[in-house]
Amino acid sequence: MSPPRAVEFWFEFASTYSYPASQRVAAVARARGTPIVWRAFLLGPVFHGQGWDDSPFNIYPVKGRYMWRDLERICIDLDLPFRRPSQFPRGSLLAARVACRFSSEHWIADFVREVYRANFAEDRDISQPEVVSDCLVRAGAPADRALAEAATPEAKQALRSATEEAMQRGVFGAPSFLVGDELFWGNDRLEAALDWYAARTRSVELS
Amino acid sequence: MSPPRAVEFWFEFASTYSYPASQRVAAVARARGTPIVWRAFLLGPVFHGQGWDDSPFNIYPVKGRYMWRDLERICIDLDLPFRRPSQFPRGSLLAARVACRFSSEHWIADFVREVYRANFAEDRDISQPEVVSDCLVRAGAPADRALAEAATPEAKQALRSATEEAMQRGVFGAPSFLVGDELFWGNDRLEAALDWYAARTRSVELS
Repeated sequence: MSPPRAVEFWFEFASTYSYPASQRVAAVARARGTPIVWRAFLLGPVFHGQGWDDSPFNIYPVKGRYMWRDLERICIDLDLPFRRPSQFPRGSLLAARVACRFSSEHWIADFVREVYRANFAEDRDISQPEVVSDCLVRAGAPADRALAEAATPEAKQALRSATEEAMQRGVFGAPSFLVGDELFWGNDRLEAALDWYAARTRSVELS
Repeated sequence: MSPPRAVEFWFEFASTYSYPASQRVAAVARARGTPIVWRAFLLGPVFHGQGWDDSPFNIYPVKGRYMWRDLERICIDLDLPFRRPSQFPRGSLLAARVACRFSSEHWIADFVREVYRANFAEDRDISQPEVVSDCLVRAGAPADRALAEAATPEAKQALRSATEEAMQRGVFGAPSFLVGDELFWGNDRLEAALDWYAARTRSVELS
């Protein structure tokens, strides 16, 4: 078996626990010299496949109440600004199309971080083109061109394919980390995913 | 506000992630000088309240597949024996009545660890009195007396009350840790619960 080439970070812009993951994944991976691949997808179709038409945090309010408190604590620990969004979940389609279409651009990490901050620290409506545009500008990206390209049939299809791929590879929530076929679910599994990657690449070097 | 007096460990013997938690909670807490209270309860009524008549890991097979793999990885990391139970979830009523009735006995920690090992390392049917009896004997407990007392109306009512209390205090899964009103859910939140306890007791000492 060939060693994994990167840790894939699968994220959904409406996903709450993806917020802290998005803010720390690049720095934590860089400190270990591990390449990250940014994989935007949509949770809607994934949840739909499980029989849900809303976030499970809305469907199961007791779990939802816990999640918001838990997220608040995590943000305090990480020193991240947090304001509970006045709308949840927010429409992530446009931002996800941009992130999927431009996943290899040098500004992708900054863009992803900005969108999460807009949603979970600034309570802005990330479904609106002007908000996504602001995030692109802050990330140093060509905003107008990126938004225009995100509206093409190719960009739309790319996001649909990514979401299909996520489901085929066993992803059922966000954030998720894939190292080859090995799946890790949750912000609190980032370190385990990086450990897995390190062990797999090291064992190949030794063999 | 008075400081919390202990970290409450809420567990269900059929719960998969409670297995690693049960094996490490006493040692981790002891290393920090934190008292632990053992709180057995039943997840059945909790899940029933969420509209489920089975474990969500059975209802949502994609999530279930992930959980078994994740649990296996966690056990490897902790150097814990693991064999996937041939039946899941196993009936935990009798063992939970024993643990609830005798939660303050000196043998409670050993008994809880033994029941989880029987279920998740030895693939034994913990719903059977002879298996629970074995676990009591291994823990140095008076097995016959404990089983007889667990069958009394008072012991049955105590477990029902504990499960009611869990739901009233926001517990929706296992393992859970309660520090006063503060809830932490999951084996991977044990350290956060202990940190929370330490900060609360320290701030009271300083004030």
